[in-house]
Amino acid sequence: MNTNAFETYESEVRSYCRNFPAVFTTAKGSFLYDEDGRQYIDFFCGAGALNYGHNNPYIKRRVIEYLERDGVLHAMDMYTAPKREFIEYFEDAILRARGLDYKIQFVGPTGTNAVEAALKLARKVKKRSNVFALMGAFHGMTLGSLALTTDADSRAGAGVPLYNVTHVPAPYMFPELDTVAYMERLITDDHSGVEKPAAIVLETTQADGGICVLPTEWLRRVRDLCDRYDILMVVDDVQVGCARTGSFFSFERAGIQPDIVTLSKSIGGYGMPFAITLLKPEIDAWKPGEHNGTFRGYQLSLVAAKAGLEFMLNEHVEDGVREREKIVAHFMREEINPIDSRIETRGIGLLWGVDFGKFGGNVSKQVLDEAFRNGLIVERVGRGNAVIKVMPALNVPLDTLENGLRILSDAVRKVLSEQ
Amino acid sequence: MNTNAFETYESEVRSYCRNFPAVFTTAKGSFLYDEDGRQYIDFFCGAGALNYGHNNPYIKRRVIEYLERDGVLHAMDMYTAPKREFIEYFEDAILRARGLDYKIQFVGPTGTNAVEAALKLARKVKKRSNVFALMGAFHGMTLGSLALTTDADSRAGAGVPLYNVTHVPAPYMFPELDTVAYMERLITDDHSGVEKPAAIVLETTQADGGICVLPTEWLRRVRDLCDRYDILMVVDDVQVGCARTGSFFSFERAGIQPDIVTLSKSIGGYGMPFAITLLKPEIDAWKPGEHNGTFRGYQLSLVAAKAGLEFMLNEHVEDGVREREKIVAHFMREEINPIDSRIETRGIGLLWGVDFGKFGGNVSKQVLDEAFRNGLIVERVGRGNAVIKVMPALNVPLDTLENGLRILSDAVRKVLSEQ
Amino acid sequence: MNTNAFETYESEVRSYCRNFPAVFTTAKGSFLYDEDGRQYIDFFCGAGALNYGHNNPYIKRRVIEYLERDGVLHAMDMYTAPKREFIEYFEDAILRARGLDYKIQFVGPTGTNAVEAALKLARKVKKRSNVFALMGAFHGMTLGSLALTTDADSRAGAGVPLYNVTHVPAPYMFPELDTVAYMERLITDDHSGVEKPAAIVLETTQADGGICVLPTEWLRRVRDLCDRYDILMVVDDVQVGCARTGSFFSFERAGIQPDIVTLSKSIGGYGMPFAITLLKPEIDAWKPGEHNGTFRGYQLSLVAAKAGLEFMLNEHVEDGVREREKIVAHFMREEINPIDSRIETRGIGLLWGVDFGKFGGNVSKQVLDEAFRNGLIVERVGRGNAVIKVMPALNVPLDTLENGLRILSDAVRKVLSEQ
Amino acid sequence: MNTNAFETYESEVRSYCRNFPAVFTTAKGSFLYDEDGRQYIDFFCGAGALNYGHNNPYIKRRVIEYLERDGVLHAMDMYTAPKREFIEYFEDAILRARGLDYKIQFVGPTGTNAVEAALKLARKVKKRSNVFALMGAFHGMTLGSLALTTDADSRAGAGVPLYNVTHVPAPYMFPELDTVAYMERLITDDHSGVEKPAAIVLETTQADGGICVLPTEWLRRVRDLCDRYDILMVVDDVQVGCARTGSFFSFERAGIQPDIVTLSKSIGGYGMPFAITLLKPEIDAWKPGEHNGTFRGYQLSLVAAKAGLEFMLNEHVEDGVREREKIVAHFMREEINPIDSRIETRGIGLLWGVDFGKFGGNVSKQVLDEAFRNGLIVERVGRGNAVIKVMPALNVPLDTLENGLRILSDAVRKVLSEQ
Repeated sequence: MNTNAFETYESEVRSYCRNFPAVFTTAKGSFLYDEDGRQYIDFFCGAGALNYGHNNPYIKRRVIEYLERDGVLHAMDMYTAPKREFIEYFEDAILRARGLDYKIQFVGPTGTNAVEAALKLARKVKKRSNVFALMGAFHGMTLGSLALTTDADSRAGAGVPLYNVTHVPAPYMFPELDTVAYMERLITDDHSGVEKPAAIVLETTQADGGICVLPTEWLRRVRDLCDRYDILMVVDDVQVGCARTGSFFSFERAGIQPDIVTLSKSIGGYGMPFAITLLKPEIDAWKPGEHNGTFRGYQLSLVAAKAGLEFMLNEHVEDGVREREKIVAHFMREEINPIDSRIETRGIGLLWGVDFGKFGGNVSKQVLDEAFRNGLIVERVGRGNAVIKVMPALNVPLDTLENGLRILSDAVRKVLSEQ
Repeated sequence: MNTNAFETYESEVRSYCRNFPAVFTTAKGSFLYDEDGRQYIDFFCGAGALNYGHNNPYIKRRVIEYLERDGVLHAMDMYTAPKREFIEYFEDAILRARGLDYKIQFVGPTGTNAVEAALKLARKVKKRSNVFALMGAFHGMTLGSLALTTDADSRAGAGVPLYNVTHVPAPYMFPELDTVAYMERLITDDHSGVEKPAAIVLETTQADGGICVLPTEWLRRVRDLCDRYDILMVVDDVQVGCARTGSFFSFERAGIQPDIVTLSKSIGGYGMPFAITLLKPEIDAWKPGEHNGTFRGYQLSLVAAKAGLEFMLNEHVEDGVREREKIVAHFMREEINPIDSRIETRGIGLLWGVDFGKFGGNVSKQVLDEAFRNGLIVERVGRGNAVIKVMPALNVPLDTLENGLRILSDAVRKVLSEQ
Repeated sequence: MNTNAFETYESEVRSYCRNFPAVFTTAKGSFLYDEDGRQYIDFFCGAGALNYGHNNPYIKRRVIEYLERDGVLHAMDMYTAPKREFIEYFEDAILRARGLDYKIQFVGPTGTNAVEAALKLARKVKKRSNVFALMGAFHGMTLGSLALTTDADSRAGAGVPLYNVTHVPAPYMFPELDTVAYMERLITDDHSGVEKPAAIVLETTQADGGICVLPTEWLRRVRDLCDRYDILMVVDDVQVGCARTGSFFSFERAGIQPDIVTLSKSIGGYGMPFAITLLKPEIDAWKPGEHNGTFRGYQLSLVAAKAGLEFMLNEHVEDGVREREKIVAHFMREEINPIDSRIETRGIGLLWGVDFGKFGGNVSKQVLDEAFRNGLIVERVGRGNAVIKVMPALNVPLDTLENGLRILSDAVRKVLSEQ
Repeated sequence: MNTNAFETYESEVRSYCRNFPAVFTTAKGSFLYDEDGRQYIDFFCGAGALNYGHNNPYIKRRVIEYLERDGVLHAMDMYTAPKREFIEYFEDAILRARGLDYKIQFVGPTGTNAVEAALKLARKVKKRSNVFALMGAFHGMTLGSLALTTDADSRAGAGVPLYNVTHVPAPYMFPELDTVAYMERLITDDHSGVEKPAAIVLETTQADGGICVLPTEWLRRVRDLCDRYDILMVVDDVQVGCARTGSFFSFERAGIQPDIVTLSKSIGGYGMPFAITLLKPEIDAWKPGEHNGTFRGYQLSLVAAKAGLEFMLNEHVEDGVREREKIVAHFMREEINPIDSRIETRGIGLLWGVDFGKFGGNVSKQVLDEAFRNGLIVERVGRGNAVIKVMPALNVPLDTLENGLRILSDAVRKVLSEQ
């Protein structure tokens, strides 16, 4: 394994590579291969960018076809045929099919850019600078999004203070506290010291926060709170959207409609950089060009994005997620939890966490390493990085799912037996 | 032309499409084609993302090849073969060949992300929050970069105040003022009220500011100022790098080495989202993961980027730019300027501006429209959007260059004759 | 009553005068007199600046004496005899007598200035910019203190965003929430999104917040929290110090020692502008002149301040407060509360509130007006300005106390009977 | 000399006392006396708080009289007789006599509070958060004013970043630059990166900045700039007002009317804490109580302030200043400058500076010490603290003036001869 170039010339900021000492070359479906020909089951999935598996054949065909016939590849935000097709398909097959009504803003092709656009618009529409975000949240690394993001290391990296966001406790943090009532008090108490927000921004399941699924009823009450106080509800579906939790939008389970929705990662279909921000038509107060970016214009993502959506619908991926969710939930309950009563497992759809926070030391890292040695790629998230995140492709074959989970449970058992 | 989907479902923020009423489908070299089969000469080039022309055949072959053999397409910042090849080639053929020594930080695939990373690092290394930027600058639209960016509309879109940046006059603004001495006074005067900056951030030629070429000697003096006061010099080469001004890095003409360099747009070779931040090895103070992003991992950009660099070097694109620069300069002087003494032309390499700021009304918009009607795509930039930006592909065929310039001069003549 | 000059020439910002339509001329003890010779019982006491009554004869003699012999009246922070005498007396008779050990910082002669100094020092010592303050807090109107202050109108007046303060719920706001544990979670959770504070700033009884007495045990736990996490505890005793709550420092009842204490208002003895900030000697990290102000040098306040302290000790004012507290508490319980079950009364020492928050409309204002018509001056504070603040001089004669309370209960009865 | 109490118990922040090792007890006119009976000529004057000399007999009589008859001493902002008298006198004898029309806002009794009020109002009225201030400025030490203040040590003391102010060069800093045109460019250039300000705040002569007299014509052009761009002009006359420069308001020499004027220091007449902010009636947009403060209510300052104004007018102090200005100017030119060509002297009225900035080392401190040893009290200000500030009482007897200047010139000569 030749990693000399990375160690010598790549910045010390590199991180995932430190967990996965291999040089990857090819990939297909739920498998990654390194240059020594080793195969790995991928339960990481590009942190959510590869929901339909690596190099999905359906999308691949469309992408190569487009390249071959010299389709325009980069066009800023000029009108193009692929963009028109994406818009039409997305509005029809995704939005109207779910009774939703949003306009699409094409933003720079990253989740953080979609969030930055959402923040700008919310503040502009409501003429307020403050925004509520939840403790445990992750929304991106550029300065606007980073102010929402909660992990201390990322925040410290800003180099400047992060303002204009009030962090409120997530509902799981203080079970005795009604956090919606808490937010209402912040807004209505003329002595709270907290400025009324333009928006409440949240992930319906906090991924980076440690796979914390927010209750359906709580989400509905936040929607209601926003309605009553003229506040925008922004759902960041960058990681947990695109069918990850069992429905295309993660908020469908609550039967609510946010005012703004951010999508990135798997909306690009094929792992391609792409992001959009969905807006209720009545708040589309943008002036032309008020938020822009060069790579809104990458047409290959539009091609892949539409193909990805087609694949998802044609293959009934949402149903597949719900089927696999049962398998994972059962495995967690029957195979992982019994290993040690201090282990906590949580999850929804195909996004699960195994939480070693009650153990001392560095158990989660040891589990990750042991799993990797046995051919499984998983990530760590959450408080103290103590949570192993299990995030397979949504169309992972059932035997591969089972194999991956088995590698994980073996790793947990081995690591804990050596403590 | 069917633009109904855009008008109904795309956010009002869309902008370039308003200037270019056509739906584009394919592209090749310096030409774009719309769905009615009309051909346009492209002197816009994706705002600098298409320096080597649309769908460059050399790069195209490599991209399709990689896709076809299921090369890993998305891998976060894990080690991959394409990344190793890019690093090795970039370090060797670009950096070492120019006597430069930088480490590479792979950042989210947009220029603004490269700038956000540069800001974080500079502030971290110098433990200072203030940064100097130039009036006239454009560095991006996410909140950190936006604080550097100067155009009033973009700034107003932030919805929150933009802090931690001191804007200093660009050298062309007050010819009587020595702006380097001015900066030195801000730093040394114990009553300036201005905090010593971590970095001075600049484009060596301001593109968005109106094609303002900063003098070579001035750049050298800024480098010297930074050395004397322990300040980092950051050159944003997102738009004017990648050979646009006649050498790969725009700062080569000054014989200086910035501490940090940002690259995006054409570094992606084929119009693909890609961005890197180059750091002097001694300031690589990042902690692992302190700045990250999902689409640092888009491997197709790495493949295209390396192919793009190969093309540039193999085809001697830098030489070609300098050859074409003479043609454009001559045309400006002999054909454009004589039309009206109020016209100003400025430029370097293949980045030129025709400034109508001395005219009342909306002359630049009329010129743009007239040029478009005659099959030429150009953009407007600068103060009052009064400057037509001429930015052909670096390998534009000489006759196409001539044709495009001719359409432009005809448009100018027509518009001014009707004032 | 000639108020023409005020109405024509004084800014609309004037406020108390709008509640008390009279032109006052003289005052003595607990009485104010207007130019028509009308007498008013003063249960307002200059918002706490007149704890020892108007024109206290003991202090008066010393003040006039000093003026007559041309004692230096203004001396910036040069050494003077009155300052030396104040320091020696304060250190000996106040601090050492209570087992306390603080250095004295003479600050600009206002409470807000004492708070600004405390904030600067805390941030400097701990090298952190964030500070925790309580919802319901009032700490002043200059920009640093205003960021701590919670009432929405005052904050809106800033004209700029107020940063670097995290407001945490006061213990009475969410009885089900352990607010000390809440603060600890903010500090220890690596995903709270809240920066560790340099200090926790609080009033032990929130006056402006509506006369909310913070529990003794809660104060002790905050002290302990600060110790365990290397955070400074700052007690703002500007309004509730100087024996107002029954001991010279309001925190004595909790048996704790804050790291920083602010004093103003009645520390000036005679209603004179004066303020000091007390610092634990080990955190006196100030550089000479790092915080200054012209009127630190007003010597008459030093003379009056020392005389005021002598009076307080010689006349056993603290004991007198505790005696009167019983009378007021009894009156509230037996005379005010029975009028209507919706009335809430709260208080400590000689600082009491009658809370009409459960009534609709503007009851508290009507009570204030009715009381004024009958010769009693009281102020309104708290959420919705619904709380009548009862704040007599600490040495109010018992019959005057009784008379004032009687006017108040009559006013309450009358107003409520007319609802 | 017993300074033990100070050294043990007073915070290290104390500063002037370090320059003047003596314990002062009494004072009269231009003289201070220490406890050993030593007499000092006072050319410091409480940094401008003692323009009419120490313990001025005319004012003294009125102050004692008021105290003796138990005039109300503290009344928040309730209506009182002394306040009415002050308002009427100030409006009539000061404002109308000069053709000026302002409303009076009574603010907390410090200069910084008057400035904080001015900033709040300007931002509120113009709905903009940015403010322009001059490099070299000093406007106070609380967080709002401190953002305007320029000296690096004071700013560093904030402990948080200072925002919402753009510092522009004072006219003397870059003689080649038209600083009014510079400000106009910041405002009009859509790519300046600088937000249009609510106000331009300035001292007409920078005292702390090193006795820098701003040109009359420049002040008029700033007034005009403000008019043309709907910006408020705020003149901070805290130190250089109250006849210090030869007319009651420092801006009278320019024939302009600012929109807001701050007064403190000598407006208190007798060295008493007092401050007011003057507002053009049409911008009095305050809501009641939106800016307040306990010691707006210190009536003794109102009594002394009115007496001080009477004294100033009755004794023709302004004329006296202009007479003495000639003496000082002559002395500087004939006695100080000839000592060494590197000395610069500057001044207006009775505010002069002797600038040793061209010398290495600590010359100004040595001159201050030598002068003090010989019975003269002067302060140091300006860049590098290199400027001796000469600021006698406005009614200093001519022989005392001469004696003080002589001590100064002897000290300069002695110190320079020993370099």
